[in-house]
Amino acid sequence: MKCECHPLPDGSVTSPGGFLAGAVSCGIKSGSEGAPDLGILFSPYPCIATGLFTQNKVKAAPVILCQDRLASGRAQAIVVNSGCANACTGGQGMIDAAQMAGLAADVLKIVPEDVLVASTGVIGVPMAMECISKGLAMMRLSNGGGHDLACAIMTTDTFAKATAVRLDLNGETITIGGIAKGAGMIHPNMATLLSFITTDAVMDADFARAALRRAADQSFNMVSVDGDTSTNDTLIMLANGAAGNALLRPGSARAKAFVKALTEVCVFLAKCIARDGEGATKLMEVHVEGAASTRDARIAARTIATSPLVKAALHGGDPNWGRILAAAGRSGAAVDPLRADLYMDGFCLMQGGRPVPFDEEAAATILRLPEVVFRLCLNLGDKSATAWGCDLSKEYVTINADYTT
Amino acid sequence: MKCECHPLPDGSVTSPGGFLAGAVSCGIKSGSEGAPDLGILFSPYPCIATGLFTQNKVKAAPVILCQDRLASGRAQAIVVNSGCANACTGGQGMIDAAQMAGLAADVLKIVPEDVLVASTGVIGVPMAMECISKGLAMMRLSNGGGHDLACAIMTTDTFAKATAVRLDLNGETITIGGIAKGAGMIHPNMATLLSFITTDAVMDADFARAALRRAADQSFNMVSVDGDTSTNDTLIMLANGAAGNALLRPGSARAKAFVKALTEVCVFLAKCIARDGEGATKLMEVHVEGAASTRDARIAARTIATSPLVKAALHGGDPNWGRILAAAGRSGAAVDPLRADLYMDGFCLMQGGRPVPFDEEAAATILRLPEVVFRLCLNLGDKSATAWGCDLSKEYVTINADYTT
Repeated sequence: MKCECHPLPDGSVTSPGGFLAGAVSCGIKSGSEGAPDLGILFSPYPCIATGLFTQNKVKAAPVILCQDRLASGRAQAIVVNSGCANACTGGQGMIDAAQMAGLAADVLKIVPEDVLVASTGVIGVPMAMECISKGLAMMRLSNGGGHDLACAIMTTDTFAKATAVRLDLNGETITIGGIAKGAGMIHPNMATLLSFITTDAVMDADFARAALRRAADQSFNMVSVDGDTSTNDTLIMLANGAAGNALLRPGSARAKAFVKALTEVCVFLAKCIARDGEGATKLMEVHVEGAASTRDARIAARTIATSPLVKAALHGGDPNWGRILAAAGRSGAAVDPLRADLYMDGFCLMQGGRPVPFDEEAAATILRLPEVVFRLCLNLGDKSATAWGCDLSKEYVTINADYTT
Repeated sequence: MKCECHPLPDGSVTSPGGFLAGAVSCGIKSGSEGAPDLGILFSPYPCIATGLFTQNKVKAAPVILCQDRLASGRAQAIVVNSGCANACTGGQGMIDAAQMAGLAADVLKIVPEDVLVASTGVIGVPMAMECISKGLAMMRLSNGGGHDLACAIMTTDTFAKATAVRLDLNGETITIGGIAKGAGMIHPNMATLLSFITTDAVMDADFARAALRRAADQSFNMVSVDGDTSTNDTLIMLANGAAGNALLRPGSARAKAFVKALTEVCVFLAKCIARDGEGATKLMEVHVEGAASTRDARIAARTIATSPLVKAALHGGDPNWGRILAAAGRSGAAVDPLRADLYMDGFCLMQGGRPVPFDEEAAATILRLPEVVFRLCLNLGDKSATAWGCDLSKEYVTINADYTT
């Protein structure tokens, strides 16, 4: 089979055929006058739709609404706001989320049941429904609106996160696009804060669900900014079938190529989230190899990427590798410190659990780079996993010490 | 039964009868010339001894040595150093820990098997054995040396942590003393970083083990500074029987009074550790009530006290209570947000999962106090637990961004 996958310049959720998006500033995000804070993603054709959501027992109202509506396996639009999470807002929150969907459905002239809702921002504040209503009336959608939408979902993000890839499968062309927002309260468990994926591929609901789960497990579920799982984590994929390809069948080479491309999109966005973690100055990539099980590899990699001490050492450019081994040791994974080897980029820092003398000057140079890769070889099996995180800076404290006020 | 328990002014591990301690500066702690970094705790009488240790799979050499020696249920001395953790030091680390015990045994004229070892400091650096040897030769012990020992185990601690209580049980007098060090990498799991407890009470090894476990579960295991469990967590209790009381029998009123007093000592030290967390400016006490199980209450309280977002909000004096509920929601405990109430000191912030309007000025005043108490009522059962933590400041980042260099 001939299969090629290319990134698209300036790709986003409107790169796949038939998707429209738009965004406006409607006044929900206080203190950021003029910043877009309300958006819509829309397909004029009905879509196969699937989602993954926070495992936090305290779920925001829009999360509960989406989980309920996605039981049908279909949807046609997502209305999303930043500035207010609509979480911990009681019964009124549920009413407001449903009303957001209803108002968007009126504008789009579709049934409310085909509209999904997502929110991000401060917890415990009621949704400003008059802003939503006013904003939706001003909304204009276009097939180049994906980047505006990526901007509208930002909170403490410093850059918009968007990408798309084009897949050539034996002459059929499929496009996958995605946007995301992250920054803080990032430690997803089966999903991420907010991310929307679009594709024009033809697929059924079961395939969509399995493909998204698989891609999320290698990407959004392996990224952490601060270990705090949000109440609003939402990852939704809409597939409108506009590419007209033959149905993707589980296990086929074409299906595998699609999942690989989807995973690429999700990994790109997940790495953006880590790189743009609140106050972050560096991206940390943690490979754990030689683990006794995939679960062990995953929890060890995630625990290292989440450890405040590893993150602070990375920030200071301090090759304090003992903290990396200590984090693996507390992760719950099987670890035999006398068999473990640790590498930072090319450098061996530890072998068989013992310090290896290294060139401190060269190590410090690597630690000043914007991306640092740690590789921990447990030498207990053949399973591996990769996680992403960021450094812990004073700026993280500044941002979070004074977020609502 | 008549039972009174009084704190002793200037109490420490040498308050109970028959315990001696001392400390010297021997040059292990680089960059802190003259600061004590080596100490001994000693009882001329044999002691019933028990300990609780880190659950991290990467255990420092002295932890492995103590776990092995405490199988006998007896010990007579602890030799302890700060500045070097003797962790991730391979086979040489085990040889060095055993040699530390041997050198101390020579000085004390007892068998090496009765000497326990504890170390705290940088991971992955070999122990400077010539400093240990030189330091032990200079060591002088006294029955007022407990505070010197508390100073010698400090690393990034800003104050020495020591206490003692006197218990009058129907005319018998029993004393319990303790010291501890904490500051960073504090998230104990069945023990704490370093803490030594002494008592002159007469007890057997089974009683000692059960009493220490019970006290630790209410104290050291409910405190967190940064969520990072150390490789060196060590809590040891020595009971030398010098009080000559009748044997403490499990289940008796006297035994319960002893465990209660022991728990008081441990809670005092655990709170000191939280209050003196790296960069901390405030102590946070988290009560979780109305939980469906004790496990739920404990994990919810611990997760709230560990959340970087809750800690950063506390630092900024920001009553961002949604983060407290979000942390409880991700803890694994059963939480129904629509039934939960949240209080800060006297203030109700949330009732039935909904925001309650509160006086922001008064709330801000409370948040400026050095101790803040959050009370989360889950209203799902009758179990409760208390955890302690601290705020997250820029100073934490500064300390940990540049610890080894």
